[in-house]
Amino acid sequence: MHIQLNPLGNMKLLSPLEVGQLQQSASSELYNLYRNCSLAVLNSGSHTDDAEAIYQQFQDFNIQVLRVERGVKIALENPPTHAFVDGKIIRGIQEHLSAVLRDILFTHTRYDHNLEGGANITHTTFDILRNANAILPDTEPNLVTCWGGHSINDIEYQYTKEVGYQLGLRGFNICTGCGPGAMKGPMKGATIGHAKQRHKDGRYIGLTEPSIIAAEPPNPIVSELVIMPDIEKRLEAFVRMSHGIIIFPGGAGTAEELLYILGIMLHPKNQAQKLPIILTGPAESMAYFEQIDKFIGATLGEKAQSLYTIIVNDAESVAKTMKAGLEEVLTYRKQIGDSYHFNWALTIDEAFQHPFNPTHENMAKTEITFDMDVASLAANLRRVFSGIVAGNVKSEGIKEIRKHGPFNVTGDDKIMELMDALLQSFVAQQRMKLPGSEYVPCYKVVRNG
Amino acid sequence: MHIQLNPLGNMKLLSPLEVGQLQQSASSELYNLYRNCSLAVLNSGSHTDDAEAIYQQFQDFNIQVLRVERGVKIALENPPTHAFVDGKIIRGIQEHLSAVLRDILFTHTRYDHNLEGGANITHTTFDILRNANAILPDTEPNLVTCWGGHSINDIEYQYTKEVGYQLGLRGFNICTGCGPGAMKGPMKGATIGHAKQRHKDGRYIGLTEPSIIAAEPPNPIVSELVIMPDIEKRLEAFVRMSHGIIIFPGGAGTAEELLYILGIMLHPKNQAQKLPIILTGPAESMAYFEQIDKFIGATLGEKAQSLYTIIVNDAESVAKTMKAGLEEVLTYRKQIGDSYHFNWALTIDEAFQHPFNPTHENMAKTEITFDMDVASLAANLRRVFSGIVAGNVKSEGIKEIRKHGPFNVTGDDKIMELMDALLQSFVAQQRMKLPGSEYVPCYKVVRNG
Amino acid sequence: MHIQLNPLGNMKLLSPLEVGQLQQSASSELYNLYRNCSLAVLNSGSHTDDAEAIYQQFQDFNIQVLRVERGVKIALENPPTHAFVDGKIIRGIQEHLSAVLRDILFTHTRYDHNLEGGANITHTTFDILRNANAILPDTEPNLVTCWGGHSINDIEYQYTKEVGYQLGLRGFNICTGCGPGAMKGPMKGATIGHAKQRHKDGRYIGLTEPSIIAAEPPNPIVSELVIMPDIEKRLEAFVRMSHGIIIFPGGAGTAEELLYILGIMLHPKNQAQKLPIILTGPAESMAYFEQIDKFIGATLGEKAQSLYTIIVNDAESVAKTMKAGLEEVLTYRKQIGDSYHFNWALTIDEAFQHPFNPTHENMAKTEITFDMDVASLAANLRRVFSGIVAGNVKSEGIKEIRKHGPFNVTGDDKIMELMDALLQSFVAQQRMKLPGSEYVPCYKVVRNG
Amino acid sequence: MHIQLNPLGNMKLLSPLEVGQLQQSASSELYNLYRNCSLAVLNSGSHTDDAEAIYQQFQDFNIQVLRVERGVKIALENPPTHAFVDGKIIRGIQEHLSAVLRDILFTHTRYDHNLEGGANITHTTFDILRNANAILPDTEPNLVTCWGGHSINDIEYQYTKEVGYQLGLRGFNICTGCGPGAMKGPMKGATIGHAKQRHKDGRYIGLTEPSIIAAEPPNPIVSELVIMPDIEKRLEAFVRMSHGIIIFPGGAGTAEELLYILGIMLHPKNQAQKLPIILTGPAESMAYFEQIDKFIGATLGEKAQSLYTIIVNDAESVAKTMKAGLEEVLTYRKQIGDSYHFNWALTIDEAFQHPFNPTHENMAKTEITFDMDVASLAANLRRVFSGIVAGNVKSEGIKEIRKHGPFNVTGDDKIMELMDALLQSFVAQQRMKLPGSEYVPCYKVVRNG
Repeated sequence: MHIQLNPLGNMKLLSPLEVGQLQQSASSELYNLYRNCSLAVLNSGSHTDDAEAIYQQFQDFNIQVLRVERGVKIALENPPTHAFVDGKIIRGIQEHLSAVLRDILFTHTRYDHNLEGGANITHTTFDILRNANAILPDTEPNLVTCWGGHSINDIEYQYTKEVGYQLGLRGFNICTGCGPGAMKGPMKGATIGHAKQRHKDGRYIGLTEPSIIAAEPPNPIVSELVIMPDIEKRLEAFVRMSHGIIIFPGGAGTAEELLYILGIMLHPKNQAQKLPIILTGPAESMAYFEQIDKFIGATLGEKAQSLYTIIVNDAESVAKTMKAGLEEVLTYRKQIGDSYHFNWALTIDEAFQHPFNPTHENMAKTEITFDMDVASLAANLRRVFSGIVAGNVKSEGIKEIRKHGPFNVTGDDKIMELMDALLQSFVAQQRMKLPGSEYVPCYKVVRNG
Repeated sequence: MHIQLNPLGNMKLLSPLEVGQLQQSASSELYNLYRNCSLAVLNSGSHTDDAEAIYQQFQDFNIQVLRVERGVKIALENPPTHAFVDGKIIRGIQEHLSAVLRDILFTHTRYDHNLEGGANITHTTFDILRNANAILPDTEPNLVTCWGGHSINDIEYQYTKEVGYQLGLRGFNICTGCGPGAMKGPMKGATIGHAKQRHKDGRYIGLTEPSIIAAEPPNPIVSELVIMPDIEKRLEAFVRMSHGIIIFPGGAGTAEELLYILGIMLHPKNQAQKLPIILTGPAESMAYFEQIDKFIGATLGEKAQSLYTIIVNDAESVAKTMKAGLEEVLTYRKQIGDSYHFNWALTIDEAFQHPFNPTHENMAKTEITFDMDVASLAANLRRVFSGIVAGNVKSEGIKEIRKHGPFNVTGDDKIMELMDALLQSFVAQQRMKLPGSEYVPCYKVVRNG
Repeated sequence: MHIQLNPLGNMKLLSPLEVGQLQQSASSELYNLYRNCSLAVLNSGSHTDDAEAIYQQFQDFNIQVLRVERGVKIALENPPTHAFVDGKIIRGIQEHLSAVLRDILFTHTRYDHNLEGGANITHTTFDILRNANAILPDTEPNLVTCWGGHSINDIEYQYTKEVGYQLGLRGFNICTGCGPGAMKGPMKGATIGHAKQRHKDGRYIGLTEPSIIAAEPPNPIVSELVIMPDIEKRLEAFVRMSHGIIIFPGGAGTAEELLYILGIMLHPKNQAQKLPIILTGPAESMAYFEQIDKFIGATLGEKAQSLYTIIVNDAESVAKTMKAGLEEVLTYRKQIGDSYHFNWALTIDEAFQHPFNPTHENMAKTEITFDMDVASLAANLRRVFSGIVAGNVKSEGIKEIRKHGPFNVTGDDKIMELMDALLQSFVAQQRMKLPGSEYVPCYKVVRNG
Repeated sequence: MHIQLNPLGNMKLLSPLEVGQLQQSASSELYNLYRNCSLAVLNSGSHTDDAEAIYQQFQDFNIQVLRVERGVKIALENPPTHAFVDGKIIRGIQEHLSAVLRDILFTHTRYDHNLEGGANITHTTFDILRNANAILPDTEPNLVTCWGGHSINDIEYQYTKEVGYQLGLRGFNICTGCGPGAMKGPMKGATIGHAKQRHKDGRYIGLTEPSIIAAEPPNPIVSELVIMPDIEKRLEAFVRMSHGIIIFPGGAGTAEELLYILGIMLHPKNQAQKLPIILTGPAESMAYFEQIDKFIGATLGEKAQSLYTIIVNDAESVAKTMKAGLEEVLTYRKQIGDSYHFNWALTIDEAFQHPFNPTHENMAKTEITFDMDVASLAANLRRVFSGIVAGNVKSEGIKEIRKHGPFNVTGDDKIMELMDALLQSFVAQQRMKLPGSEYVPCYKVVRNG
């Protein structure tokens, strides 16, 4: 099967010079990344989070960037057939493929990824989003980021749908990390809520990154896909774009996200900032939140705990709380003259912006001790969980683990104890990987003694 | 709870004279009908097909048509609370309420319901649809009517969703009779198909009638609701508006629909007409179609059988067949100069147009014999099944049965035998009523001997 | 030249029954009216106000209403060629032709034109406008009616353009009587104002009537054409639809319009009504307004004079005054709960609603005396001027005058003296007819003595 | 008068980094350019082509780029008051101001203006247009560039309107150089043509350059303003964006444009290219075209003459010829796979791309001799006329002339003779400058002998 496609969006309008650059990128070391991300979106709807398995299955898949007189074409060889209807690609997938072309080959190559200076990093994050047409200054500001596990049980999944439904009924748009579980449920629910309210322009934004897109490909409902270069810019994009954050049960990734937002909100310059953060799940998940809350209390303290609200089993209340919070957010933004669609005024310490490369060496170096100030502690905790996510589902990380064995996670006894307990509960609850395979931990908790 | 609403659509723009007429209608014998239909749409999403039960539950519900300087307001007292979000009515339900006002109080009172002449009846059907803005000459013609039971099993329901999904992927809009089961599944599936194809203006048309709206209220996905005055105009509306018909498993109502369309397509003047008719269900429902097919063969003959295609357990093939059929339909319409959005050229015999009132007397009079020509036989069979639907779920019919016992269905031995078998299989398969209550037949098959 | 056209708007969607009625109307005595109005809009842009001359020029023009399977077609024989571009009709003219079909053959035949009761007449007026889609409840309310002569000098014409431009800059939409002079200038000016403000949906509504459309055909800028059945409903439509009225210099027709609105605003029930009325013209036209103002003062009194503002040679001030007035209008409508788009609350006495047929007998009967109450006086004065307009430019009136000589206009000496002076000044200023022909008065002022 | 404005378009969405750069640019040597261009668009509708006079009149005008939390604001001090309505800036002028900000401070600073290589220059031209959202791949391709003098007589002006009207009736969009005369007439005419055809999205693109915008500010109808960095990129933009070119009478600038397009179309690689070029004017301008045609014949030869069609006094024929040409253009583009909206395949020699700086030295160096090949001759002739335009109306050029006296234009006797005659006829016909001032030539024709 050979197919040629016109890209959509701003990839429709390129000069020969730009097409030349695209082709050059496509034949560089970026090619594999480009090919794999394209494969991931073509394979949307698949039921595995094992990137390697997907790549194995479609070994004869090939993609090329062709130059034609008026611009560019994408040529596919042996793509997954379920991306097509009667030989024609599904429009949403064509859009996602165009987003991959745009973000991996066109946009990402425009930046120096060793950027110094927080302002530069923030500008890059903003520019990628703007270039993806994801910031719409003339629309109602009402974007809720939903975080949570890709591997959650059915009761939890139904609950994320219910929360999405209640948000959709109230006109909220949804942003998640792309993928199944808590990243899909809220979008699905919101779709129904939007339909009932005749809200035709509902947005379902998926923010992802190259290293996770295969494990968590954009679900079919994602109407806008943006691939940020790394998890740090992805997290910054979530936080600056959205007007509130909901955190569902999840595993290491969700813990990373929670630590990220708490670390930021604890920054002294952000004291006046308004950003509703709600932790929520069905009654059955109450233990999960108790454990998380305890961990936060023991590590980052009461002040961190006061930054979020835990709501158990009450989707309507979640949506109402978010709506009340939205009003405060907008009032605050108006008062300080900030944009309604990108939170420029939020201070993000560079410790949270610079990419953390989860090698065994870096993981070992990332000590977790009570000596550190709370912000640095949060930053390091975030890094550790980030590393565990990489070891679990990111292609690079999996290879590292295979080669060198599990990461050592080191720190003060007391924190390590809490951490161990938390991680073990994630494992027990099957939050680390989709059920079906037995989970082999990619980390070893080491106590400093 | 007291709430006042502005109606939407063309009910926004009324003269005092018209508002006066609305108020008069609302305080006439139409009031009950108006109140009940309004209650039905407010109660959308409920899980019973027992109209009486709903009416019982909301005895203190009250609705009034208020005259204000600039037009009309709808005043609700004690409406079902789940129609509201934070005290504000859900937009889709507000639209449905406006449709009830429009169709029951405004439109229906404009016609003489004892219309003579097929052309007058067709004009009325057309005028009601046009007045509801349901005929959109500037849009792509691609409307598929889906018929089938409101009470189907889960495998069948999933299958109707899959068919809707495959239709949606191919850009088809969906028209059904409003309600659960086979009337909801295709719409839900199409919603996802449309979303994937970025088809933002998907239409989910619900055609209903006053006597069945409570038992089968519009599901939340219905984006356009039209209440036709009776089942005959409703069937005519389905057939003239749509470009193809899919029939899923169902009970007496589905049989009525099948007999209606076959009776019409058998008319000599319709020989050249193009209208794809597909009977389809999951593999598990194969026996159902065999029985129906046998019944049609034995009563209406091979020619009738040749008018439809049976496709078992292949949703994709259903959608592809429909797409191929659509092309033939449009080619034919173009050739004869007919409208793409209303099939004027189709001949519908008056026997299928005049309302059949299923009293015991009329049911008894409706003989089913082999002496009749095929068209009359189809017409009478249609009437008999129509009566059984009334006895099963329509308020008037239920009262009649309660008072006088089951209808007698009379006719030639052989047909009665087939009919008895067919109806008993419907009962056995729980197609007559939603599961949960035991079904007591509203009919008695009497053989002429 | 033979051409067949599809009608636009709601004439696109007709049942065979309705097409049958259209054809019947088209072959009845309405045919001539239909043909002549169609000819008038096809001849848009012509430079004569002599309807008879136009009809003479296009004697071989023929129009037919054809029935096709899917509705109706308009067949034209020998139409004016400048209505076509490369053999294709200009879209705006196609719309106007469809409006003629709609209003003359379809809408007007639906009413009983001997309607009793003001409410019925108002409903008819409303229904015709609604049917023409001229009342748009979801748009900004900001419609200014501009009245004034079709025959004005170039300085006045430039001034009407300037006023239109200043209105357009402030977002006002324009409604006039269709035709050249003061009916075209404000629309042209507003077009430029709208363009500068990027106001893409500017409305240029032309309200006309069958008896005057040929003399004053819709100018090319009219984006919505509505043909009211008679001058009385046309005047009611102007007044109820608009949020303010500007009166430029003009002849008998403009006097009729001024008397109409003053007569209505003098009604005791309209005391609280808000409706800005501005008389305006260039410095050169000052004498004109002095004379009009004097006439109003002498006949209807100071209270009538207080209802309007005269602004000389200051287009910007006219627009600003109108804008300030608009706010008062909307505040008032909100306060009493009236519609923003149709002034239901305005009381119009039936004396102003019933069609006045300007026969010699009726003109003679319409006495003008100081014995009458002010409202009746205004009503009769309005009728007299209406008769003079008919005698000047309406086909029927011209024939009457040709047959029976000038109308006698009778009344108290003092009023007749004023009237004579006013009318003579209209003649002297060439306001009665377009320059080029000598004006022969169609009236004779008779003093009661 | 102090006023702060939000910019529109993509200037609404800037990062603090970008705002910082804007501010830096605004306080650099670019400031004067930025201020003057802003003043020019604020002064739109003025009646002088004397840039210096405008700058003198508004000496106390000041503009600043302010940084606010969410982006940027434009602060104006003592702007021309006619850019405002009731204290609010006219939307179209706000758009033009935003275009100045975008093009002068934001876009132009992104390029290296000493670009080597034609592909780079073409990319820059494309990128500026794309960034201005002027290339719309999803719209009908139908853009006509109209060139001609800013100073033309009234008969010619009326004719340009008539041509614009005929183009507008046929759905063409218009692109001109911004300014009065032949740059305004076609847009005005097209506006009426579009209105009659209900073509709501008519485009009136104005392409200008910093050095001429004050002398020829965008007329009020320009709906899209793009400021190209120099005349060479401006000419390239005209030619690559449009589907046909119409040349009205004009002076040195028009001669430059004609020589430019002929020079390009004579390139061997462009032999198969389709691009209709029409020279047209009223009957009264016939002599003008005869002279131009003779000059082209004598210098560039018959082949050059065969590239254009001269149509005298027949606006309808111009539009019809353009329409027939458009079809050929699109057929050709389709055939070679080129874009419908940007003519990538057209070869433009670098001689036509590199900016020519009209100093006395450069002018003297630009010899015009028959020894040269035709393409080089066309290129040099283009440069000479370009220099004369600069000396006539561009601020820099006027200063040069004031300092050093007229340019010497040198070349072969025979060509100089023709050139002298041509230029003198431009002077005699008042095509060099707007009437009112006496024209003092900025050049001296020197014959090589």
